[in-house]
Amino acid sequence: MSHAHQTIDRARSSQRIGSDIEKLAGPDYTRSSKAICRYAYTQEYRNTLDSIGDELRAIGFDVTEDPVGNLVARNRPPGERVFGIGSHCDSNRNGGKYDGTMGVVTALEVCRLNHELDLGLPLQLVSFLEEESSGFGEPLLGSRIMTQRVSEEHLREGVRAIDDGRPFWEHAKEAGYEPERWRESIHVLDDLLGWIEMHIEQGRVLQDNGERLGIVTAIVGLLWADIEVFGRADHAGGTPMNLRQDAGAVAAECVLELERIARAAGPGTVGTAGECEYRPGLKNVIPGEARLGLDIRGVDAESYRRVAREIGRFAVEAAGRRDMRAEYRELSDTPPTIMNQRVVEALTRAADAAGEPYRPMPSGAGHDTQLVAMLVPSAMVFVPCKDGVSHDPSEEARSEDAALAAEVMVNAIRELVSASAARG
Amino acid sequence: MSHAHQTIDRARSSQRIGSDIEKLAGPDYTRSSKAICRYAYTQEYRNTLDSIGDELRAIGFDVTEDPVGNLVARNRPPGERVFGIGSHCDSNRNGGKYDGTMGVVTALEVCRLNHELDLGLPLQLVSFLEEESSGFGEPLLGSRIMTQRVSEEHLREGVRAIDDGRPFWEHAKEAGYEPERWRESIHVLDDLLGWIEMHIEQGRVLQDNGERLGIVTAIVGLLWADIEVFGRADHAGGTPMNLRQDAGAVAAECVLELERIARAAGPGTVGTAGECEYRPGLKNVIPGEARLGLDIRGVDAESYRRVAREIGRFAVEAAGRRDMRAEYRELSDTPPTIMNQRVVEALTRAADAAGEPYRPMPSGAGHDTQLVAMLVPSAMVFVPCKDGVSHDPSEEARSEDAALAAEVMVNAIRELVSASAARG
Repeated sequence: MSHAHQTIDRARSSQRIGSDIEKLAGPDYTRSSKAICRYAYTQEYRNTLDSIGDELRAIGFDVTEDPVGNLVARNRPPGERVFGIGSHCDSNRNGGKYDGTMGVVTALEVCRLNHELDLGLPLQLVSFLEEESSGFGEPLLGSRIMTQRVSEEHLREGVRAIDDGRPFWEHAKEAGYEPERWRESIHVLDDLLGWIEMHIEQGRVLQDNGERLGIVTAIVGLLWADIEVFGRADHAGGTPMNLRQDAGAVAAECVLELERIARAAGPGTVGTAGECEYRPGLKNVIPGEARLGLDIRGVDAESYRRVAREIGRFAVEAAGRRDMRAEYRELSDTPPTIMNQRVVEALTRAADAAGEPYRPMPSGAGHDTQLVAMLVPSAMVFVPCKDGVSHDPSEEARSEDAALAAEVMVNAIRELVSASAARG
Repeated sequence: MSHAHQTIDRARSSQRIGSDIEKLAGPDYTRSSKAICRYAYTQEYRNTLDSIGDELRAIGFDVTEDPVGNLVARNRPPGERVFGIGSHCDSNRNGGKYDGTMGVVTALEVCRLNHELDLGLPLQLVSFLEEESSGFGEPLLGSRIMTQRVSEEHLREGVRAIDDGRPFWEHAKEAGYEPERWRESIHVLDDLLGWIEMHIEQGRVLQDNGERLGIVTAIVGLLWADIEVFGRADHAGGTPMNLRQDAGAVAAECVLELERIARAAGPGTVGTAGECEYRPGLKNVIPGEARLGLDIRGVDAESYRRVAREIGRFAVEAAGRRDMRAEYRELSDTPPTIMNQRVVEALTRAADAAGEPYRPMPSGAGHDTQLVAMLVPSAMVFVPCKDGVSHDPSEEARSEDAALAAEVMVNAIRELVSASAARG
């Protein structure tokens, strides 16, 4: 099961990845010159899939799309086992060049290396539709359709374009797809013996620790919740301090308590109050109502759920202490996804052999891989991004790191493919 | 200088005041059936002035308007000394029936009582234009024009209608006024030997203490300020708790510290964080920036300004403790206005004689009277409003209390007019 480490010409791979990134940041591939704006079923999105598809066809891949527009390209006929790689190439509404796209072009580079170095790896590249929710407001839409984590009713009526409010279903048809066959998308995963997605980190852990790769061991569980506090919207001038029911003050206590509890929960668990709304929100009116939008995450489900329970209880008690009322409401709770140990170990061995600093780490963001992982042994590779910035035109990542990721992916896949052949 | 207390038929006055209030809440006098919406130069505003003017003409008043549309009605020719009474009859954007309007119709009732009881008081009623800023975004506009607290350049170009963005100057001309003669408005105050405005309290002090009148001893000074905190908008999932610069957490500390400092400052000083904005304001992004809008008031200028200085300093220090930066910016600071002692004492004697519970108190809200008071001996009378609610369709006040206020005003004015005659 051990192989000599396959080295690659990292400089050449880096140059090709960088060149692909810059090409896809050009005017044919984004709706804005100030940011990457690329949403499902737009001409810019179509051009992007065509560009990637052309590259893959040139090295012998059969390029297709599933019934809703997830791109699927493979170098073996259906029914033969292949190893899956890829990411997404849509952007968020005011996006950068790297989030998603760098994972797709690095997967493309893995395919090119396999071809050039004649490695004989059976590969399937997938570029998922609408990971960022920027076209239709639903995150991970392509992978949720593929893994059947959505209802047909919702796809027909509930999922609507942000820009014109019309249903996803109509837009898909107009773009030439067959949404009524959406259930067949799951067959994209039929032949996969494993899956690796490369992505930018979207945090600053790798940068701050001087590491060039992260090997993702788990994708965090993610709980969203709202706290609403109900006080009394009195006149700021006419109401003495001791007669107030200031909902904003309770919200402020909750912000600080969430921070305290999440810190106390230890590494791997985080809690954020990213939304804060005072009503009516006027200088001269004491906030009668306040709402906080919370994001609580962790690799350990017990830990992050305990943070959520505690902040919910605190909000109710803190409001009560001031003779007000608060409601805590969980909006969603997606459990953590543990990456497949065999895939993680293969990536770890390849990273060791590559000789560059890396770390095993959780992914704090959600990815299509968390859906694929329900059906296929999966893991992810991260590359650092500058100052942890993502979802912004100032997003930056290095092609050199992506080339290193390609080398590590090639070697891990070689090991996993040959182990699979040996087993069966 | 002492008079026998002039009693009135409070039930009849209450009935007339209530009837006027209901009339002016009818469809000809508000742009909405769900709230009072009455802004300068609208047809509904015109109808309101006409209705009040007709009532006053019927009891012998000469009714005019100044060059911008402040209503001025008097029962003595120009040059003779008169006592001023009135308020405003515009509403805020989603207003109630009582704020301002009840003061105008109670002043009208004072004029009617003077006529019926043949008291011979020389009176001038003023209804100020645009107190609420709902037409042109500038509070106290009519009284600021009258007291010359505005520049012509600002009136010509800076003051613009909320609804169409066109200048106040154009709207005033289209409504038939002569804004170029705005400086002449000051002559409205030439003959005034005193001024009393009746208004709803806009707080809950009178209600909670079971009192029927407030005699205003001072209008609070009002300072508006912003705090802006600059942190780092990192990904809520990818950023461990110990690597964060959460601007929202600093803002939360400031909200609680402002409350603490304002309480410590003692009665008469209040501090409110009524606006709180997190940027970008998304659940999954740590707030990179946060802004608080503060309203700090008090009858003692030294006290409320100390609160402002302390919260400004705290914000900078609290941000610094978390390796962030904060800016504190004062937007405006209007000093307190002390009411005229003779007018306050006359009101106090009249209230004592009326035999109903009242209290001397500050006004926590701003009023046209703070501008009139710069040139004319002035005071105000408050009536309770239900639960302290104002600026809302649910606003409520009792006509019985307004009738009591009319009785107290009649008696105070009798004393002040005859004292003035005695003096010269």
